[in-house]
Amino acid sequence: MRNRVSALQSTLHHANLAAAVCCRPENLLACTGFWPVVGNSLAVVSVEGGRALIVPEDEKELAGSAAADEILIYEAASLDALEPVNHLITDALREALRRLGCVNASCGHDAGPSVVPATYVATYQFGAGLPHILEHGLSATGLQDISTHFARLRAVLTDDELSVVRTACDAARSGFRKTAEQIAAGVTERDVARTLSSAVGAAFNRIRAGAFGFCMSGPNSAKAYRAYQLPGTRALEENDVVLLHVNSTVDGFWTDISRTYRIGHPSPQAKGVQAAVLEATRAALDAIRPGVSAAAVDHAARYVLEKAGWGKEFRHATGHGVGFAAIDHNAFPRIHPKSPDTLETGMVFNVEPAAYFPDEFGVRQCNMVAVTTTGCELLTPFDGTLDELVIGRA
Amino acid sequence: MRNRVSALQSTLHHANLAAAVCCRPENLLACTGFWPVVGNSLAVVSVEGGRALIVPEDEKELAGSAAADEILIYEAASLDALEPVNHLITDALREALRRLGCVNASCGHDAGPSVVPATYVATYQFGAGLPHILEHGLSATGLQDISTHFARLRAVLTDDELSVVRTACDAARSGFRKTAEQIAAGVTERDVARTLSSAVGAAFNRIRAGAFGFCMSGPNSAKAYRAYQLPGTRALEENDVVLLHVNSTVDGFWTDISRTYRIGHPSPQAKGVQAAVLEATRAALDAIRPGVSAAAVDHAARYVLEKAGWGKEFRHATGHGVGFAAIDHNAFPRIHPKSPDTLETGMVFNVEPAAYFPDEFGVRQCNMVAVTTTGCELLTPFDGTLDELVIGRA
Repeated sequence: MRNRVSALQSTLHHANLAAAVCCRPENLLACTGFWPVVGNSLAVVSVEGGRALIVPEDEKELAGSAAADEILIYEAASLDALEPVNHLITDALREALRRLGCVNASCGHDAGPSVVPATYVATYQFGAGLPHILEHGLSATGLQDISTHFARLRAVLTDDELSVVRTACDAARSGFRKTAEQIAAGVTERDVARTLSSAVGAAFNRIRAGAFGFCMSGPNSAKAYRAYQLPGTRALEENDVVLLHVNSTVDGFWTDISRTYRIGHPSPQAKGVQAAVLEATRAALDAIRPGVSAAAVDHAARYVLEKAGWGKEFRHATGHGVGFAAIDHNAFPRIHPKSPDTLETGMVFNVEPAAYFPDEFGVRQCNMVAVTTTGCELLTPFDGTLDELVIGRA
Repeated sequence: MRNRVSALQSTLHHANLAAAVCCRPENLLACTGFWPVVGNSLAVVSVEGGRALIVPEDEKELAGSAAADEILIYEAASLDALEPVNHLITDALREALRRLGCVNASCGHDAGPSVVPATYVATYQFGAGLPHILEHGLSATGLQDISTHFARLRAVLTDDELSVVRTACDAARSGFRKTAEQIAAGVTERDVARTLSSAVGAAFNRIRAGAFGFCMSGPNSAKAYRAYQLPGTRALEENDVVLLHVNSTVDGFWTDISRTYRIGHPSPQAKGVQAAVLEATRAALDAIRPGVSAAAVDHAARYVLEKAGWGKEFRHATGHGVGFAAIDHNAFPRIHPKSPDTLETGMVFNVEPAAYFPDEFGVRQCNMVAVTTTGCELLTPFDGTLDELVIGRA
């Protein structure tokens, strides 16, 4: 995390900014280790490397162990007045900037567009309110949106952060296993999805942990190429392809994992696609090491599917950064044909070769990997052989 | 929904704006009936009342039945290029503004602070990117943040919207009943919360439906006054107070419901508090009708708890708007001692009298109500008597 603060200092220095003020939960987590719940917290990092957190009274305990020089608490609600949060937080933010020596200073912020994982059922979003506070409430000058710089800081995980991701992968493994046993004709996609969410959640012995589980079956599985999964009321049938997807989370870190199962006897085509998707996965994993271009990893997977005749059916990129992000196709590194990104040790991303056949079926294997000094660590080494995946349960 | 568009036209007219461009999922839902999944959609309403939606290809089907004069589809991702969404959407937004006769026009937007319910596991947030697109990409002039106007439009629900909320309340009823039967010593808070989420989810026969369930027990229930609920690893014990909370959702509409149960024999104090909280609920319900001030409803509930000697322990407001909002303490109408809001027919909010005793226990009953022409409809008429709630299961 210290490296990240140093990199941010360097960004601020070159951009002639005195401080970065951030509101996105994933940026607070990346810079201080504190993952807000409701979203009405801010963090400040000064060009000198000082860090301050501004946190509502209700989240004081959770922020207690954060890496910050200053933690300022404010009242986000009161029975004595009805005031919006952006007004209530302004004094504490002013004080934080004062303590870090950044009064009326030029500020970077992260209020630009971002894909944010759900921290809670409903969250406060500063939106354009953050630059507004800085400019009109605190007379900050020369505001710059440095969201992209923050996104780059989130691309590489520390060893501690990676071990949290491993915990979330392990819980997913347990949930997939339990759910696969219960897949049967007659059960609806929504039933399976609930079972999956619940089974992954039950595998955690941590407080801020859980999972979003999804199931798409038969012809619906062909729609799983979309930017979202949507389990329906369809009941599973004999010989269905069943695509399960999970985003598990613990303490602000996320996974993105899919497995494709089947009920009964697969069609020869489905078997062939499954085999090609697994081979594409293997090819991508073999290509991963520091210094390699992300586009080369995409190519390794895509080449296998093209060779098998299913290049057109592999409709999306091979992967994207995961960890601070759950599902963000633009999270670094982007494992995409046109990606300019280069892999570095500590990067965590998914590898998700797939093929989707409209109105018939879709197959995707989505694994999590971490770049090591010499290659890659497969963080989701389960259900990885053709036998385990294709030989379904009647 | 037509009334809402008329009101927005009037706002635009008075603010000298040609169009409102909105990005918040709840505002798209309120103005067009389309509830985005990923969040990378926009809606435009012109001062003439024309409506346009800009929707990614992946959500085209979901937007099919939206109330809009124009639905423009854009590609949010492609294998041919890696471009951010805010660039990719600009051309379609320009075309939408052109079709509605609003080229280079003055625009209102909703990029200001907002509390947004989770539409998906991770969502695209335009943030300050929306005014940036309007100003730099489309040469819009005189930008104004009209988030608060949108918030007012969301305070009153149509009959159709209210019936969707009723569906979500009914699912919650079923989930509370099932979960209450399974509350027992030895089960952890996280177990109960998962059971509750799953049981409420199972009660829906709709696709875009689900629930966030929470459980706080014993001394933890005293912390449920906070702006968020956080089920822990604590195992329930004999004679515990057990506070369950649910936010159920269907098609973009939300509920906010709590019930407090107990295992075994309650302390006389817990019994007394439960009775007072139920009496406060009744007093609030009796006070609700169109034209009444929201502060008077808060007072009605607060007075009962003050009279019982637990005024200080009722630490939060009596309620807030629910429906488009899940948990937003500033959603209209604010049932708060200092609220300037006046109740209107069709407003939907929660009534949540409570008392929290640090390190001991907390009791809250949170019901959903709708303001009718003559009084109020209790949308959650279940587990409402002292017997049902206090006489726990051993």
